[in-house]
Amino acid sequence: MLKVVKFGGSSLADATQFKKVYNIIKADESRRFVVPSAPGKRNKEDTKVTDLLILAFSHRDEADFEEIFKTIRGRYQAIIDELGLDYSLDEEFKTIHDAIKAGVGFDYVVSRGEYLNGLLLANYLGFDFIDAKDVICIDESGNYDAKKTDPLLTAELEKHEYAVIPGFYGIRNDDSGEIQAFSRGGSDVTGSIVAKCANANLYENWTDVSGFLIADPRIVKKPLPIETITYAELRELSYMGASVLHENSIFPVRSAGIPINIKNTNRPQDPGTLIVESTVHRPAHIITGIAGKKGFATVSIEKDMMNSEIGFGRKVLQVFEEYGLSFEHMPSGIDTMTIIVNTKEFIKHEQDIISGIHRAVHPDKIDLESDLALIAVVGRGMKANRGTAAKLFTALAKEKINVKMIDQGSSELNIIVGVRNVYFEDALRAIYNAFIVEEEEEF
Amino acid sequence: MLKVVKFGGSSLADATQFKKVYNIIKADESRRFVVPSAPGKRNKEDTKVTDLLILAFSHRDEADFEEIFKTIRGRYQAIIDELGLDYSLDEEFKTIHDAIKAGVGFDYVVSRGEYLNGLLLANYLGFDFIDAKDVICIDESGNYDAKKTDPLLTAELEKHEYAVIPGFYGIRNDDSGEIQAFSRGGSDVTGSIVAKCANANLYENWTDVSGFLIADPRIVKKPLPIETITYAELRELSYMGASVLHENSIFPVRSAGIPINIKNTNRPQDPGTLIVESTVHRPAHIITGIAGKKGFATVSIEKDMMNSEIGFGRKVLQVFEEYGLSFEHMPSGIDTMTIIVNTKEFIKHEQDIISGIHRAVHPDKIDLESDLALIAVVGRGMKANRGTAAKLFTALAKEKINVKMIDQGSSELNIIVGVRNVYFEDALRAIYNAFIVEEEEEF
Repeated sequence: MLKVVKFGGSSLADATQFKKVYNIIKADESRRFVVPSAPGKRNKEDTKVTDLLILAFSHRDEADFEEIFKTIRGRYQAIIDELGLDYSLDEEFKTIHDAIKAGVGFDYVVSRGEYLNGLLLANYLGFDFIDAKDVICIDESGNYDAKKTDPLLTAELEKHEYAVIPGFYGIRNDDSGEIQAFSRGGSDVTGSIVAKCANANLYENWTDVSGFLIADPRIVKKPLPIETITYAELRELSYMGASVLHENSIFPVRSAGIPINIKNTNRPQDPGTLIVESTVHRPAHIITGIAGKKGFATVSIEKDMMNSEIGFGRKVLQVFEEYGLSFEHMPSGIDTMTIIVNTKEFIKHEQDIISGIHRAVHPDKIDLESDLALIAVVGRGMKANRGTAAKLFTALAKEKINVKMIDQGSSELNIIVGVRNVYFEDALRAIYNAFIVEEEEEF
Repeated sequence: MLKVVKFGGSSLADATQFKKVYNIIKADESRRFVVPSAPGKRNKEDTKVTDLLILAFSHRDEADFEEIFKTIRGRYQAIIDELGLDYSLDEEFKTIHDAIKAGVGFDYVVSRGEYLNGLLLANYLGFDFIDAKDVICIDESGNYDAKKTDPLLTAELEKHEYAVIPGFYGIRNDDSGEIQAFSRGGSDVTGSIVAKCANANLYENWTDVSGFLIADPRIVKKPLPIETITYAELRELSYMGASVLHENSIFPVRSAGIPINIKNTNRPQDPGTLIVESTVHRPAHIITGIAGKKGFATVSIEKDMMNSEIGFGRKVLQVFEEYGLSFEHMPSGIDTMTIIVNTKEFIKHEQDIISGIHRAVHPDKIDLESDLALIAVVGRGMKANRGTAAKLFTALAKEKINVKMIDQGSSELNIIVGVRNVYFEDALRAIYNAFIVEEEEEF
């Protein structure tokens, strides 16, 4: 058994958090490779170390640079002192200070938060330290270069029983020797790559929440966490606005068939959310999650006998494609076809697209509406439950919410519902209550 | 006020029916132009005159031709005798007999049912007779040539206060002088064209049912008739298998803004179904009609991140287009897209299309299913009623019918539901009961 554990910024914000992390790692000897973020906020008003580094970089030629740099240093020193470690980062700070003054690049500076935290954590745990710049290769756009990284990292990990590898950065894959950060996903990506190259059984991603929530807590009051979710479900929810792991941080482990466990550093006893490729476990609820976004526009095209015109749909989509727009959904009646697009993207080319459609298919009528919100009700459990659609639409009808669009494909993994923007929050709550609250009450 | 009235075969099957038609026409002096079909079946075992004519044509060189011809002649003579008319079709029958023997074309022969019925009805009513061959031009594929017909027919109608114009045929528009029949829609098309050229206020289409029914009476027991339906609704229902007027017979009146009234010759007091372009009348029920068809296949395509691939949908549709297939619906999730096609059409090119999709978009997975039935629940009243989807899916859930696909565009004129073929009839009944039977009971 081998686990790769990644800790987010809030899990390593101060000495108290470091102790929790220590206990978590030491509680399970299979937690062999640790990927830390930089120290996060200790409270609401606090500033993340990475943000302090950005400030330091942008003030590098100004008088207050030294003050900012001192604050950063203070963050680490406080952790060292409180943990009572016989360890110093003075040398490291001197190097970083001079490098900034000498004009080193942005990515080097912002990645120092993880680098220093990695050194500190390795010392505290008594683990080896592997600098990410020696094992992780990233291209100029900030994407993981698997071809160069994988053999390098795999070989390095084999040399260590226990090690800390800082997240977020690596070396540019062009022999420039420059530090390069990931463009998106940050330390989550590093953890995922390490898990893949270590051939881990599990990738534990430790955060400050006990897993993903069934719905957005800003809209639904105290939503329950999701116990088990498949990658496919996760992707649907994440696409529809749920804030979950970035795609880039999922891909490496998913491709290797390694499950991810989202855990809470502050409540390690909670099971968290397990993300798997597939599972025979009966889900806790019919639906796994609900997510949605506002800001969609509908382009409704009417034309008599359009169904008998072979190529009609293709021609319409081609117009959108010419202007670089992807469509979200395309529900169709007999003489009508609706293209649902992101309003912001659409507005840029609105008139071009409308005239393009006119030229391409000579419609009888084109109607535009721009206040649609889409809600994805996602769950592998829906396939086995015949009353899902009934429950969903009854919940919306009870709240007097008009359904503008429905789309359910034969995967039966989701139902997409379109409502007017103003009904978005009410709809989300109504769906949550129907599937989660009322179901819980039934037990 | 000017009405064009068309009578179907069953309305003119025998003398009893002729009397009903007489009374209907004479009851309203605005019923000025009459379009008859050929005499239909008098009972279940009977043969339509047009079918007898087809038999006569195909047996024209055989011994039993005379016998068949005599039967046809008997049908008309019985009507003349029973009505006690001082009228003879002997000369006409002689001409037709000799023409068939001399090798006249098929369309001439099969159209004689309407021609003779027109003559007979004109005599009975005391109306003028206008031969369709002098006023209706039809192209070689059996489609109405509006350019040639309209001025000719308009001018002719202006010369008559009351007239009978036989349905179903006209003259070929290529100066061959040949009789040409409509390929589809038959006498309904003639009635529609006459209504248009007479600038009628109403086109009455008299049949043996009191209008269109809300659902297929072979599946739903004694369905109620539809009181008012818009052309758009009609087209949805007709596309989905409801047997209503053929598109060709709707187009001429629709383009002229003339409403159609489907009436029952046997129950002229019934209001029948009024077909209109649009109406502010509140519909009698939330839904106007339900129709459906079995025999659809679903091609489900899965690919990670397909939504971020601009042009994905277009490329998939292009493959279907290359093989001349139109798609019915295209519900989509985030990483999945389902194309719904007619199974029979699809099967011809199944492997080509699958490999075409593989080449075009490199999917992770393609799934095929071939036992889908589609049901269209259609109604302009759905837009104003928030609980439509809830009612619909609750009805299906109660019957334990699994919903495989849902498609509702922003026109809100219909919801398309996909169920497995075996559930088709049950689903149709459940929907009818929920929207019509239970609603009626509420009043």
